[in-house]
Amino acid sequence: MSLRISKEEIMQRQKLFMEKIKENQVEGAVLFKDTDIFYLTGFKFTSTERPIALIFDEKGKTTIFVPLLEKGYAQVNANVDKVFAYPEYPGLKHPMQYLKEEIEGLGLHEKNVGIDSDGYSSPFGYRGPKLSEVISFKGLTNIYSIVEEMRFIKSSKEIELIKISCEWGVHAHKLLQQYSKPGVSEIEVATRATSDATLDMTNTLGSEYVPHGSPAFAEFRGQVGPMSAYPHVTTQNLILKQGYNLVTSAAADVWGYHSELERTMFVKEVSSEQERFFNFMYEAQEIAFKNIKPGKTHASVDEEVQRYIDENNLRKYAPHHTGHNIGLMMHEAPFLDLGDETVLEEGMILTIEPGLFVEGLGGFRHSDTVVVTESGIEMLTNYPRDLESLIC
Amino acid sequence: MSLRISKEEIMQRQKLFMEKIKENQVEGAVLFKDTDIFYLTGFKFTSTERPIALIFDEKGKTTIFVPLLEKGYAQVNANVDKVFAYPEYPGLKHPMQYLKEEIEGLGLHEKNVGIDSDGYSSPFGYRGPKLSEVISFKGLTNIYSIVEEMRFIKSSKEIELIKISCEWGVHAHKLLQQYSKPGVSEIEVATRATSDATLDMTNTLGSEYVPHGSPAFAEFRGQVGPMSAYPHVTTQNLILKQGYNLVTSAAADVWGYHSELERTMFVKEVSSEQERFFNFMYEAQEIAFKNIKPGKTHASVDEEVQRYIDENNLRKYAPHHTGHNIGLMMHEAPFLDLGDETVLEEGMILTIEPGLFVEGLGGFRHSDTVVVTESGIEMLTNYPRDLESLIC
Repeated sequence: MSLRISKEEIMQRQKLFMEKIKENQVEGAVLFKDTDIFYLTGFKFTSTERPIALIFDEKGKTTIFVPLLEKGYAQVNANVDKVFAYPEYPGLKHPMQYLKEEIEGLGLHEKNVGIDSDGYSSPFGYRGPKLSEVISFKGLTNIYSIVEEMRFIKSSKEIELIKISCEWGVHAHKLLQQYSKPGVSEIEVATRATSDATLDMTNTLGSEYVPHGSPAFAEFRGQVGPMSAYPHVTTQNLILKQGYNLVTSAAADVWGYHSELERTMFVKEVSSEQERFFNFMYEAQEIAFKNIKPGKTHASVDEEVQRYIDENNLRKYAPHHTGHNIGLMMHEAPFLDLGDETVLEEGMILTIEPGLFVEGLGGFRHSDTVVVTESGIEMLTNYPRDLESLIC
Repeated sequence: MSLRISKEEIMQRQKLFMEKIKENQVEGAVLFKDTDIFYLTGFKFTSTERPIALIFDEKGKTTIFVPLLEKGYAQVNANVDKVFAYPEYPGLKHPMQYLKEEIEGLGLHEKNVGIDSDGYSSPFGYRGPKLSEVISFKGLTNIYSIVEEMRFIKSSKEIELIKISCEWGVHAHKLLQQYSKPGVSEIEVATRATSDATLDMTNTLGSEYVPHGSPAFAEFRGQVGPMSAYPHVTTQNLILKQGYNLVTSAAADVWGYHSELERTMFVKEVSSEQERFFNFMYEAQEIAFKNIKPGKTHASVDEEVQRYIDENNLRKYAPHHTGHNIGLMMHEAPFLDLGDETVLEEGMILTIEPGLFVEGLGGFRHSDTVVVTESGIEMLTNYPRDLESLIC
């Protein structure tokens, strides 16, 4: 079985993209967002200070603009008509000057051009001018939402890859639960579970499996004992103790596609206070599961969950919405949020994860990945959710 | 020994930051870049679609602007005067509207305010207005370079943390080399080396060690055999074969600080062609080492290396510059690049990594992390560089 999106599907995406921008009276495009460039070309790269861009001319011909050190790999991997390589960043001549020349050479400055942002930005130390500072376009239109919205509904192949991601997330999580015991550090448990699951996954899937991120992993990210009261804490190197809450996170990258499996576990024993919050959290997640149906809005699902939170006087423990879409990005729009009126559609993939966080006691959150079906949802993260199964 | 930057040093950074912006007639600031917010507050967070910003008022009082789910952890970890939390993204009211109210409440709209970018951007699926679209400031000045330049010269504590990063990178690399043999997959070798090194590191350093990224790791990132001809290839799940070039990467996060150790290794045997390119690469790196001295420019070092490349007819194999600074980011300005005239100063930490990449044969690159001293450099990645030591 192929573990990647086919060239045909990628070319189909390019065709659809051109149709959608033309509907918006846009004649060509310059995209900088790495996820969207990968989605439209299959070229996976590490974003650095060296700008990378994808250009569509008015006929839909594609040019990928890369630093010289990416040229060979782009030629092998990017489904594009042309690879243009500039020497280096910052270089004797700034990459944006090369981009200007390439875009003007295509005549795009005389068109209404779509952009996802006005120039490159980087997780590293990049400085450079905006696109609109180096080129006078006839027109510039922000079309960030066009590719983002193309990614809302997953194809059958995308769903297949995300299912595989879920299966290996489940496997890694089983090991994490098995290795969790009093006196061991969170890093040790996570490292052993991740290492074993990674080897199991790569041995099973064989050479067809090319990760574009972490293979199977499972971890706590610092959500151990009282620190689990902070939902976005980072790894703290804490020691597991009897009676602690643990909040976990497990998944696996499959050709750039993600999933999310999180469980609230307890070390050896559970207090009545812990059980009380666990049950509220469990019920809140059930409410979300039951309310997801094509045709309803994302907001309506969060409204049901938030109503339950309020009815049970849990407001001060509930700092976030119900969930988000997931795919090439860990968190994608639309969101299961009071403010997101996007309608749910078959083929969307979402995380369902209402959480309760109690200062001094800990966090209570399961996260499951589901795909929206004709009548509701299909659960993709098949891992026990009940309290008894989660005492380790 | 403390494995973190002290509160005193962080408060000193804030003071210096205010002095520097005032020198530029800037009266306050709004920063969005995660690295710089961490540098100035010690608050480590995961960037998501939920905007986070750091505000300095005209007196230097600091407010960190976070989503509600980060509030508790920010209160514990951020060295700031105030934590302001907005409910959620996208929410019934967009976070940027809350930011507007907070900034106007501080009277900053009536000032000349420094920004590092005109609004938030995200690795995830964020949409939102620019800062200048929601607030009419008296003046807006881009001060991105001010914090970036504060980070150029490392303090003695920063150097200490990066040295520890290097030591554990060396340890992980030793294991990687030891585990590399024909017939094993790159993922297996890297996973075993990383897992063992991580456990060794966390067991040795104990609870004082809080990673803000990966503990000790070593990997190939797909640079195995002919694929090593592509310097920024990603993991391919390839099998090591006798006679292959391998290009490696090893380091360890220490409280957010990075380092870089890369070696060109050979599986069991080396051809004369491989040896020839190895020797050129080795010599190019030597030239860089010898030419780094305080007072010289970054460009001048790259000029010497590029001259050697040209003199030996290696131009077509050399697709990138000599190296970059490193610290809280994997690649930081300034760069050892023909176009970067920044003067080298004592306390800068750089990677030295000229590389040669031969299509069909493979890649040849060592990367070492060095600190600029009064008279030249101190090597921080103490790992053998000679050919004989790198046959595995």
